[in-house]
Amino acid sequence: MMAGMDAISAKLDRTNTGSLASQLTDRLVGAIASGEIVLGTRLPSERQLAVTLGVSRTTVMAAYRELEARGLVRGQVGRGTFVVGGTEPGPDQPAFAWQGKLAHGARRFLDPGLHRIINVADRGAVVLSINRPALDIFPVETFRQVTDHVLRQHAGAALGLSPIEGDPGLRAEIAARHGTEPGQVMIISGTQQGLDLVTRCLLDPGDVVVMDRPGYFGAIQTFRSAGATLVGWDIERGGAEELETLLVRYAPKFIYTNPTFQNPTGRTMSLPTRRELLRLARLHRIPIIEDDPYRELPFHGTPASPPTLRELDDAGIVIHLRSASKVLALGLRLGWLLAPEPILQQLALVRLRTDISSPGLTQLIVRELMTGGHYDRHVAALRREHRRRYEAMAAALQRHLPPCSATWAPPTGGLHLWVRLTTPDGMPLDAERIQRDAAAAGVLIIAGAPFHPDGGGAHSIRLCFAGLPPDHLEVAIARLGRVVRAAIADNAVPSATVALV
Amino acid sequence: MMAGMDAISAKLDRTNTGSLASQLTDRLVGAIASGEIVLGTRLPSERQLAVTLGVSRTTVMAAYRELEARGLVRGQVGRGTFVVGGTEPGPDQPAFAWQGKLAHGARRFLDPGLHRIINVADRGAVVLSINRPALDIFPVETFRQVTDHVLRQHAGAALGLSPIEGDPGLRAEIAARHGTEPGQVMIISGTQQGLDLVTRCLLDPGDVVVMDRPGYFGAIQTFRSAGATLVGWDIERGGAEELETLLVRYAPKFIYTNPTFQNPTGRTMSLPTRRELLRLARLHRIPIIEDDPYRELPFHGTPASPPTLRELDDAGIVIHLRSASKVLALGLRLGWLLAPEPILQQLALVRLRTDISSPGLTQLIVRELMTGGHYDRHVAALRREHRRRYEAMAAALQRHLPPCSATWAPPTGGLHLWVRLTTPDGMPLDAERIQRDAAAAGVLIIAGAPFHPDGGGAHSIRLCFAGLPPDHLEVAIARLGRVVRAAIADNAVPSATVALV
Repeated sequence: MMAGMDAISAKLDRTNTGSLASQLTDRLVGAIASGEIVLGTRLPSERQLAVTLGVSRTTVMAAYRELEARGLVRGQVGRGTFVVGGTEPGPDQPAFAWQGKLAHGARRFLDPGLHRIINVADRGAVVLSINRPALDIFPVETFRQVTDHVLRQHAGAALGLSPIEGDPGLRAEIAARHGTEPGQVMIISGTQQGLDLVTRCLLDPGDVVVMDRPGYFGAIQTFRSAGATLVGWDIERGGAEELETLLVRYAPKFIYTNPTFQNPTGRTMSLPTRRELLRLARLHRIPIIEDDPYRELPFHGTPASPPTLRELDDAGIVIHLRSASKVLALGLRLGWLLAPEPILQQLALVRLRTDISSPGLTQLIVRELMTGGHYDRHVAALRREHRRRYEAMAAALQRHLPPCSATWAPPTGGLHLWVRLTTPDGMPLDAERIQRDAAAAGVLIIAGAPFHPDGGGAHSIRLCFAGLPPDHLEVAIARLGRVVRAAIADNAVPSATVALV
Repeated sequence: MMAGMDAISAKLDRTNTGSLASQLTDRLVGAIASGEIVLGTRLPSERQLAVTLGVSRTTVMAAYRELEARGLVRGQVGRGTFVVGGTEPGPDQPAFAWQGKLAHGARRFLDPGLHRIINVADRGAVVLSINRPALDIFPVETFRQVTDHVLRQHAGAALGLSPIEGDPGLRAEIAARHGTEPGQVMIISGTQQGLDLVTRCLLDPGDVVVMDRPGYFGAIQTFRSAGATLVGWDIERGGAEELETLLVRYAPKFIYTNPTFQNPTGRTMSLPTRRELLRLARLHRIPIIEDDPYRELPFHGTPASPPTLRELDDAGIVIHLRSASKVLALGLRLGWLLAPEPILQQLALVRLRTDISSPGLTQLIVRELMTGGHYDRHVAALRREHRRRYEAMAAALQRHLPPCSATWAPPTGGLHLWVRLTTPDGMPLDAERIQRDAAAAGVLIIAGAPFHPDGGGAHSIRLCFAGLPPDHLEVAIARLGRVVRAAIADNAVPSATVALV
């Protein structure tokens, strides 16, 4: 902004008949008119220019006042004097620097990892990286008929603006399914939006969140982008003992957990751990965000999963998130949230600043699918099919990967598998490398690091099995097997040997 | 949290044979066991309790260590010592205090005014408060057929997860309509979401936004909830001269404007003002958020509205927001955003943390409506119908309100009217009172104050005419007329008289 200053910094002519102030005025007018000083330039301070020119500050002040009177500059207390008339910057000016305008919060959104996962560029690859239900057995024809019915019978509600908290009929249906009041139900545009609303409602920069380690990377990135510090809780190894230490030590704003068919481990939190978690949360007055999108998708009906944290909660400290997208179809962008009314109303106020409410059409279709029994029939079909797919993937892993190279805790439901990769003699493999090589071989998977709020996961991968039929899974795991074999082969060469070759 | 302290603050017995430390330990154990000190209580600091009891700090420390060893308390550096064993708080404990957990940002969302406007409680009232197109002439049958076609032909894309930036086909169609590249188009869940994304991407607390005064209250509340300071720009009275002063003085993060059929004034920014705005914004390197949801809804084809700021922009500093909801149906929750790719990609990263992407079904329906010509045909029909409704409302205002009591600048398009209310001899009326009385009379309108980023609007109301047929408008304005007459009558009584009665 100080370009063009050469044009005015030469000493003034004290033998000139004009006053120093008018000489300076003329010089500045000329420099502005010629484009030597362009629009938007901040002129030197009066004091600074006076020193440069060896004149009094009054002289400079008089010149600036004259320029201001002529509409060429404008002074601003505390910011300086700016050129506001004259020549515009030329067309060779560089492109507008949007990067410089980004908010601090937005700079925390910079990790494009998930972006790449969602926007799968290579549509030819087999996608084991997206957590999704079996869309290929989705009852499209029923969906079409239900949609048609909704538009014939309820066009007004389908096309008009829904209340922020959701269509009253859908809220009532979901409330009935949960044995709660409609006032505790809010329809959301997917559980990711639920996490976003909760984050905006509860988290300040610097707040601590205690969460599953490993845990859902979308949650990790959302909390982090709000400036929160994440502390991992290892439910399996640390248990309630570790949790209590974390609660006392960090006084977190909330506890986040995905207790059923957890993403990424597939594990389900036991009833005693659930009870202990609730006891401690209540004791320390710390809310729990229970992210439960896979709840409806066990492989078998029995043994049933333990009750939800919300069902066990008698203190009103749980916000419970559910997904219709993860059950029916990702593209629906619909879920729901159960929460005590005071916090639900706060979440609605935040929601009002985003997409206001979910589309009426989608809400009415889901309501109709639920009340007509289609939803539950499809869930039953999904459970059988997902089990078949899990078994196909597990068999393929045993067939195509070297013995003992892939180990996992068998999930009893959900959409994915969490696999630890080692050499047959137990040396851990580099999951990032496997992810890279697998992508090159046409299989998209996610290595474990992004699932760890505070480091770890270097030797695990998440494999989503539910979205693809067994023959596709077979192809994908065969390719993955070759990738793992190659990694093991490289691993087997002692690094000393490599250095000698 | 310091309840139960009476139980331990009595002086210790120095004649007792046990050490002071073990006496204190026993006392604390007893108080915890009896429930006098409940779980979660923070004990006094060692120093504090030592002073209270008149013992050395070492004594207290020894007692606390003993309790810790027995698992009854846990000390945390910097936070104190907490009771972690013993009796749980009773069931008479008050409900969980969610309010105390709210983030600072969420506290700025507290104004429930817009919430009340969207969630209209009294469905019997005539609603002139929601800005919406004529849904009653919406081609429901065409929409139904198009939806059916989409689900028959493109079920996969309709139900699968859309890319974050939107369905490629819809982006291409919109890009073609704007003569731009699909990479500069992002599909959003309504313009309100666009404002939210822009806010999260660009605004830090303390940033300044220069915006239309009066201007869209949703924008005001969104910017404010991000902690921004809003500075109003009076486009009509202040013009470019005022804008330049504001830009120099406040160095805003961006300029927000709704230049065409503005909400609430209905005014359209002239071409010279648009040029001057762009020149100044470019000069001062300040981006412009051009909110243009009513762009497609002029009453007449000629004279055409001036080009958009984006069309006039040669420096890549404009983010342009458009709405399909405001054109087709509010419940669609769909719009689009045009922006230079670098900032569009940033907006997509923020979007990924909210609803990820808009539902595939809605996107494909809108694409089909556009490519099939239905969209443009409906827009043409809306323009005729909205004009008819505006004229009906204008005529009703002239018929039912006292002469000269309602004045407005006739809009040439859009969905609403901005009316200044006075007594026939020019004394301004209290718009808040009119809003209140009108609601009591079964007509919902919005008084002007929330449209003012920095005060004002006390005598204006916004009337949305497009959503209702002429006979409904007639009924509503007749009621409003009675309300205004009553207000004028009250106004005519000198307050001195009132005091004497």
